[in-house]
Amino acid sequence: IGEGSAARGDVDPLPSWNEGSAKRAILSFVSDVTSEGGPNYVAPEDRIATFDNDGTLWCEYPNYVPYLFIFDRVYDMASYHPEWNSTEPFSSILSGERTGAGSFSPGEVLEIYVATSSNMTAEEYMALARDWLDRSSHPDHGLPYTECVYKPMLELLSYLRSQGFKVYIVTGGDQDFVRAFSQEVYGIPPEQVIGSAVKHQFIEVDGNTSVVKLPEVQVVTDGRVKAEQIQQIVGLRPILAYGNSDGDIPMLKFATGGEGPSLGLLNHHDDPIREYAYDIGSSIGGLEEGLELAGEWGWEVVSMKEDWKYIF
Amino acid sequence: IGEGSAARGDVDPLPSWNEGSAKRAILSFVSDVTSEGGPNYVAPEDRIATFDNDGTLWCEYPNYVPYLFIFDRVYDMASYHPEWNSTEPFSSILSGERTGAGSFSPGEVLEIYVATSSNMTAEEYMALARDWLDRSSHPDHGLPYTECVYKPMLELLSYLRSQGFKVYIVTGGDQDFVRAFSQEVYGIPPEQVIGSAVKHQFIEVDGNTSVVKLPEVQVVTDGRVKAEQIQQIVGLRPILAYGNSDGDIPMLKFATGGEGPSLGLLNHHDDPIREYAYDIGSSIGGLEEGLELAGEWGWEVVSMKEDWKYIF
Ligand SMILES: [Ca+2]
Ligand SMILES: [Ca+2]
Repeated sequence: IGEGSAARGDVDPLPSWNEGSAKRAILSFVSDVTSEGGPNYVAPEDRIATFDNDGTLWCEYPNYVPYLFIFDRVYDMASYHPEWNSTEPFSSILSGERTGAGSFSPGEVLEIYVATSSNMTAEEYMALARDWLDRSSHPDHGLPYTECVYKPMLELLSYLRSQGFKVYIVTGGDQDFVRAFSQEVYGIPPEQVIGSAVKHQFIEVDGNTSVVKLPEVQVVTDGRVKAEQIQQIVGLRPILAYGNSDGDIPMLKFATGGEGPSLGLLNHHDDPIREYAYDIGSSIGGLEEGLELAGEWGWEVVSMKEDWKYIF
Repeated sequence: IGEGSAARGDVDPLPSWNEGSAKRAILSFVSDVTSEGGPNYVAPEDRIATFDNDGTLWCEYPNYVPYLFIFDRVYDMASYHPEWNSTEPFSSILSGERTGAGSFSPGEVLEIYVATSSNMTAEEYMALARDWLDRSSHPDHGLPYTECVYKPMLELLSYLRSQGFKVYIVTGGDQDFVRAFSQEVYGIPPEQVIGSAVKHQFIEVDGNTSVVKLPEVQVVTDGRVKAEQIQQIVGLRPILAYGNSDGDIPMLKFATGGEGPSLGLLNHHDDPIREYAYDIGSSIGGLEEGLELAGEWGWEVVSMKEDWKYIF
């Protein structure tokens, strides 16, 4: 056990993590950047940590949860859109012909996204999301999606917060969808959720005001856009970034490609018994380049099979 | 003195504010929303307050400070841009033919903005801003611009924070320009500054990464865009909004046009002796519709002459 271990007489802040390289790297890094007077000390206001959501904080397999939500919205909205029965990509969903995220092109997913996630306020959308989350459950695990969150990751979020970190979610999912449960499930307030979004419009009707979601894409927060949105919204380079797919590479490179101490981590879904095993070539959470770059960039590849005592 | 006054034996949290309607409204509102079990109690995580910057937190007259910064950047960059000597709007600045924000159209200002605020990282831009702020001073007050901040407003920011509010700046100025001094001057961290911005691009060179500012406008955070950006980035309706010009009206309407307790405030620059007097028809900080709407919407119009003991 390295010098960074908190096990020495203290309570272990990461009890669901097995001793190993990943846990050592986390404890050592946090100890380093929080040691006042030490060479790698980072002031609390600069302790920014950014986490991907799908596949990093909660289960994304066999289908991204935000996709399942908007696909179900197509069913719920279908009676108001008779034209969808003969219009792709909606007709394929309604007929059950195509199911699963992998059977739709990115453009089709965006079309479904804007059609089902607009013409209402964020509050209304979050209420729909909460209602859907309450009545949906994971097909294999039999749990509500909000309980398919990774226990070791919850411990890590709490630990980082206790050490003065400000923790953000940076997700390809709609940010209001994630904001609907981020506080309750992750302890992360809405303003620390940066996600994909549609355009917004301020409206006023009889002295009542609101900002509504428009049926037009504003930003898809994946790949290099994750790094760009972090800079735009947070205004700082993170010192810790944690993802699980190649879409997180720019975020990890941004965190670890500057001066000063930093830590990049990738969850590797390699546990077919307790969760799933997927990486190269997967249409969900594909991870290939990330595995190749990890050594060169010094990122920790977290084996969910070996590094985690518990998954959920 | 109303029931909201904190004067009863406690230390006055707003000593630079004269007793009057505005101070009473602030103290009463804060007392209301922080009284656990009271009918207007607001949980700490929902206590979002949004402040305009120019003319609300610091002096904007006779010229917006962010404009002065980018106009001076034109001088500083001119030797690299010989073509500017014969290209408007740059040539007018270099020849001294046109000075002052009011002599340039909004489109020209944007052109100057993107030309002078791009092709570098936010860190580099903030360093330029800090350097400029260190060597510039207000033409009338003879103080650095960062000391031309309103003392009563600093007290209000501190007071709100002490009462569990999360305080944001929502400004038409470039957000990195304001982030360069917001923590030091206002106690507001970069991630709580929402401003105008150019587009950003993630780049990687030899293993070093950064996000650079591109010469293209991303967002101009004025008017209804203020409300829209608050919803996008914070994800919540503010319960307090404070501005000083008609460009802040949608932000105030957003804060005060929902259900639940809220407070809208506008600084009225009506003190020609200690600061300036301007409102209707001013090319800087024009305030006309805001004065008309204040009564109907229940906003406090803060007389800088009557309500403030000190300006700076
Ligand atoms: Ca992911
Ligand atoms: Ca203003």
